[in-house]
Amino acid sequence: MKLSDLGEKKLIKRLLKKRDERLDIKNPILTQSYHDDAALIKNIYKYSVISTDMLIEHTHFPYAMTPYQMGSKAVCVNISDILAMNGKPQSILVSLALPSSMSVEDFDSLINGILDTCEMYDTTLIGGDLNTSDEIVICATSTGVVCKPKFLKGIHAGDLVAVTGKLGEPAAAYDLLYNTDIDFPEHEKVINTLLNPTLPYATSKVLYTHPELITSITDITDGLASELGVLMDNNHGIGFNLESIPYNPYIREIAKANNKNISEYLLHFGEEFELLLTLDPKIYQMIKDEIPDIHIIGYADTSGKITFKDKEIKSNGYEHLSGE
Amino acid sequence: MKLSDLGEKKLIKRLLKKRDERLDIKNPILTQSYHDDAALIKNIYKYSVISTDMLIEHTHFPYAMTPYQMGSKAVCVNISDILAMNGKPQSILVSLALPSSMSVEDFDSLINGILDTCEMYDTTLIGGDLNTSDEIVICATSTGVVCKPKFLKGIHAGDLVAVTGKLGEPAAAYDLLYNTDIDFPEHEKVINTLLNPTLPYATSKVLYTHPELITSITDITDGLASELGVLMDNNHGIGFNLESIPYNPYIREIAKANNKNISEYLLHFGEEFELLLTLDPKIYQMIKDEIPDIHIIGYADTSGKITFKDKEIKSNGYEHLSGE
Repeated sequence: MKLSDLGEKKLIKRLLKKRDERLDIKNPILTQSYHDDAALIKNIYKYSVISTDMLIEHTHFPYAMTPYQMGSKAVCVNISDILAMNGKPQSILVSLALPSSMSVEDFDSLINGILDTCEMYDTTLIGGDLNTSDEIVICATSTGVVCKPKFLKGIHAGDLVAVTGKLGEPAAAYDLLYNTDIDFPEHEKVINTLLNPTLPYATSKVLYTHPELITSITDITDGLASELGVLMDNNHGIGFNLESIPYNPYIREIAKANNKNISEYLLHFGEEFELLLTLDPKIYQMIKDEIPDIHIIGYADTSGKITFKDKEIKSNGYEHLSGE
Repeated sequence: MKLSDLGEKKLIKRLLKKRDERLDIKNPILTQSYHDDAALIKNIYKYSVISTDMLIEHTHFPYAMTPYQMGSKAVCVNISDILAMNGKPQSILVSLALPSSMSVEDFDSLINGILDTCEMYDTTLIGGDLNTSDEIVICATSTGVVCKPKFLKGIHAGDLVAVTGKLGEPAAAYDLLYNTDIDFPEHEKVINTLLNPTLPYATSKVLYTHPELITSITDITDGLASELGVLMDNNHGIGFNLESIPYNPYIREIAKANNKNISEYLLHFGEEFELLLTLDPKIYQMIKDEIPDIHIIGYADTSGKITFKDKEIKSNGYEHLSGE
């Protein structure tokens, strides 16, 4: 059965039924949702944060990605921006453009990917739209709440630079999928970091309760070097001295098979979904044992440039609509 | 010059420069926006309303539409859903997918259409995303604030049924563009209702201050009959008796040239961007002189069906992904 056999209204009913079956009342903030013209949110926090991202099949979904994983990734990408303001995720709206030849089975998988991932991050699906298109387009907008928002600005020389997880695996996964594949024990695990990304939510929940620790925050979707460049643009005169970047040693083999230096994976690929933070060093010393999965990779200085193991690195990241 | 000559980052800078040039400080609620991972909104109202809509070139933009009008329509469609909850528009996020062969001139026009229309409805552009696609896709999410939200539910038999403007012109415009064109004095005015829609904002601002008047509210983007059907679905046992629907008499000529009955234009086309309301009749009598451009078209009853001039009418509206 194809989507065109059911039509928009039945598909939306199908989606809402799936959503409503899981909807628990643990989030009473969302008093009305999806069944009216707009969703209603009761404002019980001082600030809301809101962000949108559009994912398009040919650009954002590797060929090996399932509809379930596409739905999941669309949710992750959006919630990542909420975590990147030190926010707590709350709701999401998802607009879909789908080929009318898509099977209803694939539609169900995509919706399950969206709903499972929402659940993982305490997020309620509160709205959306459904359209026809030749290729799959998923545009989501997520909202979060925050009492003490944190920004790109705010870095002082001497602040620690931290990331919330090991880097480089999505880059290695890309090479396994598109360039030179090699067989080794962690193969599936590496591929999964690209096809089925997850967010550093446990760490994020702890950071949310310690805003005084954070002097700046962003996510690493465009690659570590590029994101450090953005932080430099937002903090006049600041530079970064990186000493070590955490990674799983087995990705070295993949880099070698693809004639690449490991630092390309760690600095210039992106799709990481980890957080990049600068931290107040004194506060970090006091509370570091409370924060899971945080890695200090260097410190901020006044050099105005990025140095990794005494070598200057460029900050250019991926850019859409460029040179095509 | 094409978009691919500039690339994503320069285009976003260009867009933000245009946005920031117009940004007045009359909306201090939006304390941070667009330059960080997510936009920050300070919550000073009890509720927020939020809605999203995706517009796709081949479905939503008539061939005669300019890039300026596409940007403007995307904003209108979204803010319409905020007005349809009796909300006050506040902010919008706009994700764009554009062909890399698009000219920078057309890009600028599209952005100007977005920004001019935001300004018209006191809305600030606070976020977005930019991607490549074969056809133009605009997905916007708008937020609003509201103290006393109004819903699809809440109708009592005897309530008045009202619309905020004359109907049928977008349907007539569609026939002029796609079917039988005729030459007459109001030609351009009619076409404009489809290519350059506007919202009943003056009326909406007055309604916002009289929530006690409204028993239900929605917009008419899917056609009057379809929207009345949605109201019936949400108000068990309710029906509607319509006596007259306001329209400009010159659209009769267009209907005639296209072998159609005027009621098809008034009931079954949509793209109207007017509001459909049910009103408390006693309160309406007291304050009706304060509300500009409101037309009583009938009343709610307990018939469970829609009757127009003693004839029952069906409520089916347009549906995407159906029978394609």
